[in-house]
Amino acid sequence: MQRKLRMGMVGGGPGSFIGAVHRIAANMDGKVELVCGAFSSSLDKSKETAKQLFLSEDRVYANYEELISKEAALPEDERMDFLSIVTPNFLHFAPAKLALENGFHVVLDKPMTITLEEAKELDSLAKQNNLVFCLTHTYTGYPMVKEARDLVSKGVLGNIYKVYVEYPQGWLSTFGADNEELESPSSWHTDPAKSGLAGSMGDIGTHAFNMAEYVSGLEVTAVCAALNKVVPGRRLDDDGAVLLQFGNGATGVLMASQVATGEENNIKVRVYGEKGGLEWQQDIANTLLLKWRDKPAQIYRTGGAYVGSFAKHNTRVPAGHPEGYLEAFANHYRNFASTVLASINGETPSAEELDFPGTKAGVRGMAFVESVVSSGDSEQKWTPFAV
Amino acid sequence: MQRKLRMGMVGGGPGSFIGAVHRIAANMDGKVELVCGAFSSSLDKSKETAKQLFLSEDRVYANYEELISKEAALPEDERMDFLSIVTPNFLHFAPAKLALENGFHVVLDKPMTITLEEAKELDSLAKQNNLVFCLTHTYTGYPMVKEARDLVSKGVLGNIYKVYVEYPQGWLSTFGADNEELESPSSWHTDPAKSGLAGSMGDIGTHAFNMAEYVSGLEVTAVCAALNKVVPGRRLDDDGAVLLQFGNGATGVLMASQVATGEENNIKVRVYGEKGGLEWQQDIANTLLLKWRDKPAQIYRTGGAYVGSFAKHNTRVPAGHPEGYLEAFANHYRNFASTVLASINGETPSAEELDFPGTKAGVRGMAFVESVVSSGDSEQKWTPFAV
Amino acid sequence: MQRKLRMGMVGGGPGSFIGAVHRIAANMDGKVELVCGAFSSSLDKSKETAKQLFLSEDRVYANYEELISKEAALPEDERMDFLSIVTPNFLHFAPAKLALENGFHVVLDKPMTITLEEAKELDSLAKQNNLVFCLTHTYTGYPMVKEARDLVSKGVLGNIYKVYVEYPQGWLSTFGADNEELESPSSWHTDPAKSGLAGSMGDIGTHAFNMAEYVSGLEVTAVCAALNKVVPGRRLDDDGAVLLQFGNGATGVLMASQVATGEENNIKVRVYGEKGGLEWQQDIANTLLLKWRDKPAQIYRTGGAYVGSFAKHNTRVPAGHPEGYLEAFANHYRNFASTVLASINGETPSAEELDFPGTKAGVRGMAFVESVVSSGDSEQKWTPFAV
Amino acid sequence: MQRKLRMGMVGGGPGSFIGAVHRIAANMDGKVELVCGAFSSSLDKSKETAKQLFLSEDRVYANYEELISKEAALPEDERMDFLSIVTPNFLHFAPAKLALENGFHVVLDKPMTITLEEAKELDSLAKQNNLVFCLTHTYTGYPMVKEARDLVSKGVLGNIYKVYVEYPQGWLSTFGADNEELESPSSWHTDPAKSGLAGSMGDIGTHAFNMAEYVSGLEVTAVCAALNKVVPGRRLDDDGAVLLQFGNGATGVLMASQVATGEENNIKVRVYGEKGGLEWQQDIANTLLLKWRDKPAQIYRTGGAYVGSFAKHNTRVPAGHPEGYLEAFANHYRNFASTVLASINGETPSAEELDFPGTKAGVRGMAFVESVVSSGDSEQKWTPFAV
Repeated sequence: MQRKLRMGMVGGGPGSFIGAVHRIAANMDGKVELVCGAFSSSLDKSKETAKQLFLSEDRVYANYEELISKEAALPEDERMDFLSIVTPNFLHFAPAKLALENGFHVVLDKPMTITLEEAKELDSLAKQNNLVFCLTHTYTGYPMVKEARDLVSKGVLGNIYKVYVEYPQGWLSTFGADNEELESPSSWHTDPAKSGLAGSMGDIGTHAFNMAEYVSGLEVTAVCAALNKVVPGRRLDDDGAVLLQFGNGATGVLMASQVATGEENNIKVRVYGEKGGLEWQQDIANTLLLKWRDKPAQIYRTGGAYVGSFAKHNTRVPAGHPEGYLEAFANHYRNFASTVLASINGETPSAEELDFPGTKAGVRGMAFVESVVSSGDSEQKWTPFAV
Repeated sequence: MQRKLRMGMVGGGPGSFIGAVHRIAANMDGKVELVCGAFSSSLDKSKETAKQLFLSEDRVYANYEELISKEAALPEDERMDFLSIVTPNFLHFAPAKLALENGFHVVLDKPMTITLEEAKELDSLAKQNNLVFCLTHTYTGYPMVKEARDLVSKGVLGNIYKVYVEYPQGWLSTFGADNEELESPSSWHTDPAKSGLAGSMGDIGTHAFNMAEYVSGLEVTAVCAALNKVVPGRRLDDDGAVLLQFGNGATGVLMASQVATGEENNIKVRVYGEKGGLEWQQDIANTLLLKWRDKPAQIYRTGGAYVGSFAKHNTRVPAGHPEGYLEAFANHYRNFASTVLASINGETPSAEELDFPGTKAGVRGMAFVESVVSSGDSEQKWTPFAV
Repeated sequence: MQRKLRMGMVGGGPGSFIGAVHRIAANMDGKVELVCGAFSSSLDKSKETAKQLFLSEDRVYANYEELISKEAALPEDERMDFLSIVTPNFLHFAPAKLALENGFHVVLDKPMTITLEEAKELDSLAKQNNLVFCLTHTYTGYPMVKEARDLVSKGVLGNIYKVYVEYPQGWLSTFGADNEELESPSSWHTDPAKSGLAGSMGDIGTHAFNMAEYVSGLEVTAVCAALNKVVPGRRLDDDGAVLLQFGNGATGVLMASQVATGEENNIKVRVYGEKGGLEWQQDIANTLLLKWRDKPAQIYRTGGAYVGSFAKHNTRVPAGHPEGYLEAFANHYRNFASTVLASINGETPSAEELDFPGTKAGVRGMAFVESVVSSGDSEQKWTPFAV
Repeated sequence: MQRKLRMGMVGGGPGSFIGAVHRIAANMDGKVELVCGAFSSSLDKSKETAKQLFLSEDRVYANYEELISKEAALPEDERMDFLSIVTPNFLHFAPAKLALENGFHVVLDKPMTITLEEAKELDSLAKQNNLVFCLTHTYTGYPMVKEARDLVSKGVLGNIYKVYVEYPQGWLSTFGADNEELESPSSWHTDPAKSGLAGSMGDIGTHAFNMAEYVSGLEVTAVCAALNKVVPGRRLDDDGAVLLQFGNGATGVLMASQVATGEENNIKVRVYGEKGGLEWQQDIANTLLLKWRDKPAQIYRTGGAYVGSFAKHNTRVPAGHPEGYLEAFANHYRNFASTVLASINGETPSAEELDFPGTKAGVRGMAFVESVVSSGDSEQKWTPFAV
């Protein structure tokens, strides 16, 4: 098959930040084209978005049900190949389920669902129907994060001792005057009905958790969480810290806050093993620090001649031309698209292509949310990580 | 008009780094689609590239002459709107000239041409034919570079005293064994017949020069250059430093080297005035440092609430999500496309949309090349900057 | 009075790192001279050290008891003014007690003692005898740490939400071959008989705890600790993390590890409040970052014209001349010495001079050690901070 | 001999920054004691300084002539061993000459003298009288600068191609109101009668020049200088840039400015060779970056287990405890003192002890001043470096 993959989109109407990001990520490598959408609960707004995207009006739908049923009814060489779902959390499960049931591959924004049970259902559905599923944990799309995982998995740090991961943001550090928080476009983040059990832990804690497990190659087995509603009036946690136990005996600390005033988005991970340590942070995304006992630390760089196949595969330009957030996002799309294409063509994707977050990451993310909320309410120190 | 702009491309065949970059930059915002190309001097290779890009074969041409004449003959609602030229330097002038003569807008990689005279000819042609021209001096596409220029132009630094600009690279620090340099795909960079009068000064010196004039808002009036062929066997300068005089009495230093072993691509600019100084470097592209007498330095950031309209217009994601080289490149494409669209629709682009490097930057860049080569050969300290 | 203060020293013989540091810190400002010592349990080694320090042999003593009794017997204008105690932890209490009982002011290395009870006894003794006591929590001696505390206390960050403090080291990341750990000069750090209840928590956790309370101006009220003996064979915790509750409702996280392979000594503190946040780390000791909602972050610098009286008082050279660990250490000595001198002369020291860690910091540090060890053994999440 | 060396001082009275720095540097390691001084042209002020330093009044002298003659007349076991001269430039030569003529070793602040001829005379005198001479080019006292030189001299970078050195300051970026500049305590810096031929080039350009030659191990053979008096009313250059040629065919750029508004004191050196490059800057003084072709860059650190004997010898505390400007300064004093002591004791100092700037550095520094001033006035591009 020699053609672009056809993408549909649910959500991403006027004012949506993450919808625009998904579209840029999909566009970047010229391997995907947007063909249809239900961008908003208002059909007018949806059409407005479609017009800006040069989409033909007959592929704009009133809602995800219509989109899926009508696309499913189109001829195979016309209908969308996969659906990108970029709605608020409470609108993840239903469209994803319907898409999978109708044979469409799915890209879904994180966290996967509102409950662990729902996440497991999507996992089962995707497996049963042999469909490709990508959960956009953006940060593991960075070349130097992939290099970090690669190096750890090859044992260069030796047996892992410790994992620190943090995700400080400041954008929720005030409530805003005149109920601003309850009425802003991003108000769903702090609304239990739309965001789920957790606020900061679902929004950014899941990213940090995914980063910790991805880079270390370890799985969390128990958590001790302290969650806080710092800003008066806030209805969900806006801050939290979690002590972690991993399966190999290693331990860790996860910190996520949306009231770290003045912080932007500098997710950071550090992993220490018997032989060495590593450090990566989004703000200097193209650098991976390797630290050693009794040897100089080393600066690994995106595009470096010495990096492994995973980092190389996810790099577009030579060393010294910074690749950023959108490229990391596009890496997930590109790898997902390659895997879908391989699936369509009956081919086997490479390990590098298959390296994007899927249903397992999503299920574990929801287990994280449920575990830390449960731990936050508990007087016991340790709560088992139940998945 | 509500449609994507149609782009043709000359150059950018198999193995071309800069061709791929132009395509990603053009794709990113979904406002441009590639419709035709003459990607290589080999038609077979050109078709191979076209296939990977899902281009129909009837829009692949044997050479730029055929491309331009056949596209010009297509119906208006089908033919390309503009031509991107991503060939080595010696193949810039002819296709650009022909495209302009046939009414096509042009995106051209830098440096503009081989001689100042050619650059002036393109400048005249574009003006006569009322066509939009973009010269891809990538680095001035970064939001924080635009913010720097904006702040200087508003006088926040006061009267400008000093400009330092540097562009250290290390990729030419050896010649390679077995005439590797003469036979590699990038060999044209060091070949006088293909690169022009200058090596490093044309390749990266022009970027540095453009950065210095763009950010400071000043124009160079005299240069004192020391150019070197450091690596034995090298046929063009691979290193150089230039003392600068500016029109307002300020002075500067420009350093460009391709034998700074271990350096990647960290172009950096510093401007100092009576009231304060600023510093930007590509390696921390989303940060602009403002330095003051007797007040704490400030860290301006891409996406910051306080940045001006030029930076805002060229930013895609909220603060803390790093934007990189490809986004900077895409900013030029997006602004160029908006300007072309406005031209087609008879509208007036905004100042922010018009802020991309055009023929004037190209002409001054070629004057820079000729001035520094002349100065390099002179025993006099100062050589007037002749344009 | 116009003379140097006379210092005695217990500990700090051949091979002692911290003894040398204390002497440099005492020397630096020319206000203190070393006059006597019991540097080692071996009198020969003690004399060897004395010789290198140009001390007369008749002021070298066999042990701290002899030192204190003989110095006390000297004429007032000859005997030492204060005693610096730089021995391993288990040898802190007895000489400090005896010195205080004999009217000598005391400088003591941290942690204060082996038990909280001992610490309280020293606290009482110093108060009863009206003696000056300095506990060398070095890191709060840095000018930019003092500036941080100053700014927080003035309310520039608003109500405090969150405190993160971390102290990662890697020097204990292996046990060493052939029982190296048990027999090295620094073996006492990991020996329960000599170090006390805690390993890493006493060694560096107390520094981190002191930093958190000092900068935030808050007091910890409850802890949730996970302490680990990571390296096989280790007899005390070599790693730990502690969730913190503060009196004002703020929360925090303290991380201290001596198995963070490749890390040196980069203690770091971050404090976030309603209006802004701040960040300081030893590795860039002369910089204090101030972060704001909707305004550019600011870089406060040692020696900056805008810093407060506490930072100014503790700075020796103009901005841009880095001050380091030894200067921070010397700041404690200088402030201690000024306070002793004021005491001798019946004068009142300034607030800036009085700003060095004393018995209260020591008592709270020992309460920290006992609280986190107790919490580490508990299955309950929260353990009250008992002092 | 087992005693502290006895130091005299000329200059360093009330308000003197550099005098205080010299005294701290001399104090730090407990190997030197200040015994006498002529701190000011006013005897009263001199006595005031002496009192603060706990010096006995009979060792305070009216001027350097009296100091030298009376000290020379004292018994050998009482009189000063060496003289530190910390006066403005125009008062360097005479006291240094007289001290050398009377058999005293000398520490002298930079630049050495007002003229090259004077510098040569001091050089001859010191050699004839077999006296130790230290010129306090502080920045080469940093451990990581010594490591840089060590690595270059061992050939790890291969044949050297390029040297960049810069020293940006901002403290002279305005003239000040009401003739402030002419009447401030530091006014001598910009006064031709007191500072010499050059302003910024003597003040900081000589430091940069010394750094370039020290680290690269190369000698400058020709210069092309552009010197500027940027601020209206300024009587000497406050800014300049110099293109450099070195004996081995390498080239370089030296930039020094005192009108780089907002800059503190961040002297920085970069050296590139065929195999790799290195970078050091004062603001991150304990880090030396090593950059390589096709291998990760390395971070060398003060106190690292892997550093060479020169860096080790000049380090006081373990890695991760920042050493700063005062320690760098103290390294020169300590090495000078060791060399004087060896001279007194008839011993041979180690290569590490001998590694401090002496008369050769001073002579070359004055040749630099004369060469760049001459070049600045010339219309020829290149001026030979005449020494």
